[in-house]
Amino acid sequence: MDSNEQPATREFPVRRVKQSRATTVSDTVAVEEPLERRLVYWFQDAPAVQSLGLTMRTPGSDRELMLGSLLSEGVICNRSDVVEVRHLGAPPSNEIAAELAKHVDAEAWRLARASYISSSCGVCGKRSLEGIQRPFGEESQSSMNVAASIVSRLPDALVQYQDAFSRTGGLHAAALATGSGEILRVFEDVGRHNALDKLLGWCVLEDLLPLGEHIVFLTSRSSFELVHKVVVAGGQMLATVGAPSSLAIETAREYGVTLVGFVRGDRFNTYAGEWRIN
Amino acid sequence: MDSNEQPATREFPVRRVKQSRATTVSDTVAVEEPLERRLVYWFQDAPAVQSLGLTMRTPGSDRELMLGSLLSEGVICNRSDVVEVRHLGAPPSNEIAAELAKHVDAEAWRLARASYISSSCGVCGKRSLEGIQRPFGEESQSSMNVAASIVSRLPDALVQYQDAFSRTGGLHAAALATGSGEILRVFEDVGRHNALDKLLGWCVLEDLLPLGEHIVFLTSRSSFELVHKVVVAGGQMLATVGAPSSLAIETAREYGVTLVGFVRGDRFNTYAGEWRIN
Repeated sequence: MDSNEQPATREFPVRRVKQSRATTVSDTVAVEEPLERRLVYWFQDAPAVQSLGLTMRTPGSDRELMLGSLLSEGVICNRSDVVEVRHLGAPPSNEIAAELAKHVDAEAWRLARASYISSSCGVCGKRSLEGIQRPFGEESQSSMNVAASIVSRLPDALVQYQDAFSRTGGLHAAALATGSGEILRVFEDVGRHNALDKLLGWCVLEDLLPLGEHIVFLTSRSSFELVHKVVVAGGQMLATVGAPSSLAIETAREYGVTLVGFVRGDRFNTYAGEWRIN
Repeated sequence: MDSNEQPATREFPVRRVKQSRATTVSDTVAVEEPLERRLVYWFQDAPAVQSLGLTMRTPGSDRELMLGSLLSEGVICNRSDVVEVRHLGAPPSNEIAAELAKHVDAEAWRLARASYISSSCGVCGKRSLEGIQRPFGEESQSSMNVAASIVSRLPDALVQYQDAFSRTGGLHAAALATGSGEILRVFEDVGRHNALDKLLGWCVLEDLLPLGEHIVFLTSRSSFELVHKVVVAGGQMLATVGAPSSLAIETAREYGVTLVGFVRGDRFNTYAGEWRIN
């Protein structure tokens, strides 16, 4: 796999006003750029190409973003489903292609996607609401238990990894932690969905799925779609700094995910699966 | 137009943990529900129906959300393009239909949309990046000037309108203010894009477009897509509580929108169009 280093932040001249007095300073801003995603797969013994369209994202960890989005969208389950992920063209490139293994029936997936895209817009569409596909099945249910003090320490443990956020205030972070609170990896992005996709893509690369013994920790709020991604990855516990939505709670309860929100200071709320936190 | 009252918040039992001690309390949560949008239009003297898919949104002001999304997506420009917007089925309904006037060429729009959906996912797609369609043209450019003290007072002015946020901490707000800082209208939603679409849809209903003399104020960060919506509505000034992305700044500069971020206390940053703030 290739390297395509692009900065996650950029400097902009900005007029800073304080008490109605203006000065011109340089401000560090989170980069947002489009990434075009393409899928290369086998159909009737011939290679086929499908554009997956543009995603606005913060450059960096594009391969992980690609793999995580393919996992979330139900195209792949694990690393063996993918032959290669690489940028197209000379760096810095905003185009990426994933080549699938021959055993992956992407044509069936493409047709199902086309039919639901015609009646809805992408990932938040009808198909999701008709039931979440769980590649790791229900057997990924674990008996994981976590101490409340572990949950409370997650924000402090994360801070040291949030390099770009601390400079811009404009990025979401997604972290994978062990059940004892050790942060294994953190990804940042202007989009909270992208940050989680990057984390899940890294889990695909590291062969860590299903996430039955880990905590997924997000600096954002939780929505239906974020819980959906955790369910697909076989995750059992999602904790966020922000508030959950009603559908995030209902989905977490339906699929047996422990959902924690408002993790701040020595407090948090458990909205689903409270028996796993003690 | 019809009434389809649904609560924007719901109570959930939640286990609240403080200093590792748990109590069960009732928590107010922002509602997230799917809304299916349908377009009814005329093609070759016959009515046609196009599903626009599902949007996850907070119920309430669905008509405004529908109209704002149609404006943002380039289907309509003003109220005379729409005959009726109404919910389908018995309330509470999560399906809404907009009937367009005969003069609107929605078939051309539908074909263009189908071709870019096939290569990208909805609103953040290629078409947007190829140039933003401005129904009100460049003549909506105004000579609007705003005092720095007006900008600084926006958060305090907004607080009294953020009913659901104050109870849930889980909603974004979009407000329309006059150049003298008076808040005209506020909409809330779990999605920041929806909150802005609701606001712009209300502007369509009130015949307030183009927004050459107003300030659009958001509690969220700013991204390419949010600036895009303001540009389509002929807006000249966007202020947010959160940080802008690099592409938000670049788009604002390209399209002559004044972009303000980090409006907090007596401070803010101006990232584009600084000559309009004095």
